[in-house]
Amino acid sequence: MPYLCHEIKIILFLHMKHNKTILITNDDGYQAQGIRFLTEIMSRLGRVVVVAPDSARSGAACSITSTRPVCVTQIADNIFACSGTPVDCVKIALEKILPTKPDLVVSGINHGDNMSISLHYSGTVGATLEACMKGIPSIAYSLRTSKKQCDFSPYEQVVEEWASKVLNDGLPMDTCLNINFPETDHLDGAKVCRMARGLWHTEWLDAGLDEDGRQVFTLTGTFCSQEPDAEDTDCWAIEHNMASVTPLTLDMTNHDALPKLEP
Amino acid sequence: MPYLCHEIKIILFLHMKHNKTILITNDDGYQAQGIRFLTEIMSRLGRVVVVAPDSARSGAACSITSTRPVCVTQIADNIFACSGTPVDCVKIALEKILPTKPDLVVSGINHGDNMSISLHYSGTVGATLEACMKGIPSIAYSLRTSKKQCDFSPYEQVVEEWASKVLNDGLPMDTCLNINFPETDHLDGAKVCRMARGLWHTEWLDAGLDEDGRQVFTLTGTFCSQEPDAEDTDCWAIEHNMASVTPLTLDMTNHDALPKLEP
Repeated sequence: MPYLCHEIKIILFLHMKHNKTILITNDDGYQAQGIRFLTEIMSRLGRVVVVAPDSARSGAACSITSTRPVCVTQIADNIFACSGTPVDCVKIALEKILPTKPDLVVSGINHGDNMSISLHYSGTVGATLEACMKGIPSIAYSLRTSKKQCDFSPYEQVVEEWASKVLNDGLPMDTCLNINFPETDHLDGAKVCRMARGLWHTEWLDAGLDEDGRQVFTLTGTFCSQEPDAEDTDCWAIEHNMASVTPLTLDMTNHDALPKLEP
Repeated sequence: MPYLCHEIKIILFLHMKHNKTILITNDDGYQAQGIRFLTEIMSRLGRVVVVAPDSARSGAACSITSTRPVCVTQIADNIFACSGTPVDCVKIALEKILPTKPDLVVSGINHGDNMSISLHYSGTVGATLEACMKGIPSIAYSLRTSKKQCDFSPYEQVVEEWASKVLNDGLPMDTCLNINFPETDHLDGAKVCRMARGLWHTEWLDAGLDEDGRQVFTLTGTFCSQEPDAEDTDCWAIEHNMASVTPLTLDMTNHDALPKLEP
C-alpha cells in the first residue's frame, strides 16, 4: 500500500477524460457501501477523488482533530483514507492532496438520515459545510435506513441530477445542499424544502457498570418532527416518499432576533 | 470519589437558596479555569450544576458519542465529569442528572474565540445549540486568547448581565447566544451583532512521518474576516475591544435560496 507523498499533486489527473473535478467524502469511512455508490455515479460527471475517514465517524458533526496529528494513506490512485474527521478530510484534500480547487464536493451517501435538527450532529453534513466555507459547491446525501447493506439504486437518478445541476449552475453564496432519501423501492421525485423543527428524546439507555464500577449510558433516542403537517419541510417530504433537498446557509445568525436583543 | 447513582436526582437541590437552576458545561473540561470562573458568577444567579467533559474536547462541534458508551463521575455535590462530548454532557445532564429542566444553560468560558465560521467547529457553541434544541435558553462564552491561564475579571460584568437578562427575559424560539470577548484589560461594553463571513487558510503543518512511515499533518491555520469593515459583525466588535453578542438559530435553511432551487 503506497503512502501519501508530495509528488501526488503532480501526478494526479494526468490523462483523464473529464474537465470537472469532484471530491467525495463521507462519515462512514472510505469502504462504506454508500460512498462506493456515490463514486460510481460521480465518475460519470467528472474526475473523482475520494478522501474519506479510515473508519466510521458517525455523529462527528463539524468536529476537527486539534489535539493530535492526522495521517493520510493512499489506498488507490484516487482514494485516500484519513485518520481524522469528515471536516479534516475536506481540509486536507483541499490543501494537501488535490492539485486544484475541485468543482464540487459531495458527501455520503450516509447510512442514516440527516433531516431536521439531526443535521447538526452529522459528519456527512459537516464535510459539506466545510467545503461551503471554502467557497466550493457541495451536497450531502443521506438515506433513512438502519441497514449496513442497502439498495441505493432507487436514488441514482436524483443523486446524479442534483450533482449535475450544481456542477452546471453553482449554488448561492455560503450555501450547500442537504439531500435526504426515504427508504423506498420507487422514489416519488425530489422536493425543495426547509428543515423541519424537531426533537430528540429518551436518548440514553442504561448500560450497566464499567470495569471501574461507574454507571455507563449508551446514546440512542427517538426523533419526532415538531411540525409533521408542514408540507414545506424535509420531514414531510421523506414521510411522503420524496427526496428532500434543503439549502443550508453557513450564517447561523438569527437576523430577526438582532433588534430584539438591543438594550 | 463517589460515582453517579440513581439517587442523585432525589438528593440534589435540597436546602438551596435560589429558585433558578443553571446548567454549566464547556469543551475544555470540568477543571478548566474558564468554567470555574463561570461557575462562580452563575452561583450569584441560581443553583448551579456543572456537567462537563472529563478532559479537553476542543473542536468537538455538535459531535455526539454514538459508537461507545458514555460514563459520568460525580466529582462533588454539583460537579459531574462526563467521558463524552459537550453535546453529550448536555444530553446526559438533562435526562440522567438534573431533577428538572434547568432555566439556563451556559457554556465556557472557552479559552479561544468562536467568532464567525469558527463557531461551526466549537464544542462550546455545540453544547449551547443542544440546549436550544431542548427548548432551554442558552449562552456560549468564549475569550480570544491562546493562554491556558487568563484573567477573566474584565468580562465578569458582561457575563453576568447577559445571563441575568436571558434568565429574566428568555430568548426567541430556537435561538441561543454566542458571546465572544477580546483579550483586554478594559472591555468597551457589548455589541449585538451578526456572524462575520470568514475564512480559515494554511491549515496544515507537515509533522513528519509516523511510526508506520506515513506522512502526518497537524491542524493549525490562519483566520481572516472576509468583511473586516462591516461594523455589524462579531469580528468587528472584537477588533474594537467590545464583546460580541450574536443570536444563533437552529434553522440552517437558506430561506432565500428555496425559490431559486425550484426547477
